[in-house]
Amino acid sequence: METTPNNRSKREWEKLQANAGNGLLDRRAFLRGGAAMAGAMMGYTFVGSAAAEPLADDAWSKAPGNIVPAYGAPSRFEKNVVRTLSNPNSEPRTSHARTPHHLLNGTITPNGLHFTISHAGNPDIDPDKHRLVIHGLVKRPLVFTLDALGRYPMVSRMTFVECGGNSAPFFSKEPIQASVQALHGLASCAEWTGIRLSTLLEETGVDPKAKWLIAEGADAPALSRSVPITKALDDAMIALYQNGERLMPGNGYPMRLLLPGWEGNMNVKFLRRIKLVEQPAMSYYEARTYAPILPGGKAYQFYFLQEVKSFITHPSPGMMLKEPGFYEISGVAYSGNGRISKVMVSADRGQSWAQAALQEPVHSKAFTRFRVPWRWDGGPGVLQSRAWDEAGNVQPTRAQIVAARGETTKVPPVTGFPSQHYNGITTWAIERNGEVKHVYA
Amino acid sequence: METTPNNRSKREWEKLQANAGNGLLDRRAFLRGGAAMAGAMMGYTFVGSAAAEPLADDAWSKAPGNIVPAYGAPSRFEKNVVRTLSNPNSEPRTSHARTPHHLLNGTITPNGLHFTISHAGNPDIDPDKHRLVIHGLVKRPLVFTLDALGRYPMVSRMTFVECGGNSAPFFSKEPIQASVQALHGLASCAEWTGIRLSTLLEETGVDPKAKWLIAEGADAPALSRSVPITKALDDAMIALYQNGERLMPGNGYPMRLLLPGWEGNMNVKFLRRIKLVEQPAMSYYEARTYAPILPGGKAYQFYFLQEVKSFITHPSPGMMLKEPGFYEISGVAYSGNGRISKVMVSADRGQSWAQAALQEPVHSKAFTRFRVPWRWDGGPGVLQSRAWDEAGNVQPTRAQIVAARGETTKVPPVTGFPSQHYNGITTWAIERNGEVKHVYA
Repeated sequence: METTPNNRSKREWEKLQANAGNGLLDRRAFLRGGAAMAGAMMGYTFVGSAAAEPLADDAWSKAPGNIVPAYGAPSRFEKNVVRTLSNPNSEPRTSHARTPHHLLNGTITPNGLHFTISHAGNPDIDPDKHRLVIHGLVKRPLVFTLDALGRYPMVSRMTFVECGGNSAPFFSKEPIQASVQALHGLASCAEWTGIRLSTLLEETGVDPKAKWLIAEGADAPALSRSVPITKALDDAMIALYQNGERLMPGNGYPMRLLLPGWEGNMNVKFLRRIKLVEQPAMSYYEARTYAPILPGGKAYQFYFLQEVKSFITHPSPGMMLKEPGFYEISGVAYSGNGRISKVMVSADRGQSWAQAALQEPVHSKAFTRFRVPWRWDGGPGVLQSRAWDEAGNVQPTRAQIVAARGETTKVPPVTGFPSQHYNGITTWAIERNGEVKHVYA
Repeated sequence: METTPNNRSKREWEKLQANAGNGLLDRRAFLRGGAAMAGAMMGYTFVGSAAAEPLADDAWSKAPGNIVPAYGAPSRFEKNVVRTLSNPNSEPRTSHARTPHHLLNGTITPNGLHFTISHAGNPDIDPDKHRLVIHGLVKRPLVFTLDALGRYPMVSRMTFVECGGNSAPFFSKEPIQASVQALHGLASCAEWTGIRLSTLLEETGVDPKAKWLIAEGADAPALSRSVPITKALDDAMIALYQNGERLMPGNGYPMRLLLPGWEGNMNVKFLRRIKLVEQPAMSYYEARTYAPILPGGKAYQFYFLQEVKSFITHPSPGMMLKEPGFYEISGVAYSGNGRISKVMVSADRGQSWAQAALQEPVHSKAFTRFRVPWRWDGGPGVLQSRAWDEAGNVQPTRAQIVAARGETTKVPPVTGFPSQHYNGITTWAIERNGEVKHVYA
């Protein structure tokens, strides 16, 4: 029997769509080795168009191209793929640069687009003059040049960094219409290479009385944060390289403290000092921004962990679905507790859920790309993702977070509460015209 | 008993150094959880200096820093961390841009520093006008816009790309004194995201007569290569993203064919056409550059695989060891056959070998960073690395390669043989003054 799109598709279609409501398909539908599926896709009237003619030569096929640069940069046609800046004229206040998740794919954030927050611009540090001191409750205080650090044993790991204030707009009583970049752009993921802090602490020796360390940056605000010694001896790193090359200036060049899975602000950039102490310093950020008062009157303090979270990047607000048919829903999930174990996706406001495919390998405390095939029928849809981590934590609903921490009529982030550590579910509505909107479920 | 550097170190030192000759230490010496090692490092008189004074404030700690850019770039102090260009003035010939391995660390090559070879500059392609056609021995020829491709199921994978002519200088009779960038800089590694070619071929359908495909680029030379259909249906990808963002112009923007583990030239950039055919095209590159004649008179053709290989990046030529003491030897290993299973390192010209630590996770057909701790005693040393892959292949010696393929008195690459697919062992000599030189073992 001849394989036509229609007779083949009907049978295969039934196999594929059994997953969840409103067009979500089985995540294994398009796995490699799917020879049994051959032809099945045709049934979707996928998205390729019939090729009637050979391609005509465009201008760029007829003449030599541009000069090859010593340091590559994106095409001029990608000029809108940039970070959005909260302080483009560098006024004397904090500058946020947000990652354009909706324009990226994969799990790595390229260095040019890694989010940064700078409290007084990016310091122009001469790496040959920069020093790192480890002192306080140690047996032998030491000072390290960058050259000296370069001789120590190194490790590499993929990990996300997320600002504690990422996703603050979700505390607003009304859903703010903005892109996923504006809503979730203060989280990024890179391969970081450097020296375990524990290696350097073996050099200095640790006085048993030391329970905390204070990490201080060399930027003008001398940003400092207190870190429990247990984290320092666990997976803390003095990061020297970001995706293979030296750290970007906004990410702490020439070195930063990296505390995988913990509040971004604690990953002290431009690191110049680690002092081992008995008590936390109650420094500016830990006493103020990251210690908001909760509705019940308690303070939200020393809550270092960035908890299990996910959001859909494709499709997301600002995008337009041009026509009904097949789309891939994808996004990122991550947890400061370890590996992502499962992501479920709904297209019907949480009435039914389909398990998403996770891009292997799944790294601990790193972005995990999830994907689920979807056939949009042209009607309304409400897309959500929900993540679980290997420690058994599940991403809460927005209602659960708001019940515990309150909400605000102002547009966050506002000083005080609530603006920190939002990790609840994100909801995008697909309208009949294909527009994607931010809604609360 | 008090733990002093000296009484502690003697015992620990003996434990650590049992590995191989001339100072190579056990790769597990500095693993996390090495509490038993606490204090041991001090015995090495590691490389930190005593911290006598608190740090003085440098200029950058006293004033606001630089403006935060929309697209981040490396510090001005990293201006030498660039690709070396074989054709900086864009004359009408091929341009090579080589990755500075000696200045990088980790496993990912950042996008600005990924090697590229362009035969007529980088075409300035408008992605909205670019099309990909799949035709020939298919059931339904199709043309795809970038928007249409964006709707298909995607996958991400870490993989290296290596020019078949990488490391050509090793065919020279005399070792060429040059950096690892000059010698091995035509290989890089990134996370690529795109659509499996098999997914698109399910859309078009494949005529059983199709045994090859011809992939053609939209650059002015219309570079084309023949690829067996088995590879197309295995792990071939139409890559759209490189380390999260759209491909760099020199890496094929807006799309390239990605054939993990196969000769770089076949990973056709600016991909615009895939034609399924019965026989290979015998196109320019496969009939000329990549078909050199071997000493015995046979031709070296359709040898697509980039075989198991490794080289030490730290230390490497151009670097200077300032003083005896501890150093980390590290480098990259990779194989087009799959995962790296083992890397051995020698510091005594191959008389004894120590197993290197491999940075986890080890990806198939990707750069794997290997590391081994080393205590340089200030005498001469000869460093080598040798890699094995999971398919059981071992990196050959240079003598084995030269015996099979010949050598040349000219400085390669020269047209003809031998210049392709060198994957033999690389040897660096450490001189008494700490200089690192390229030698043949």
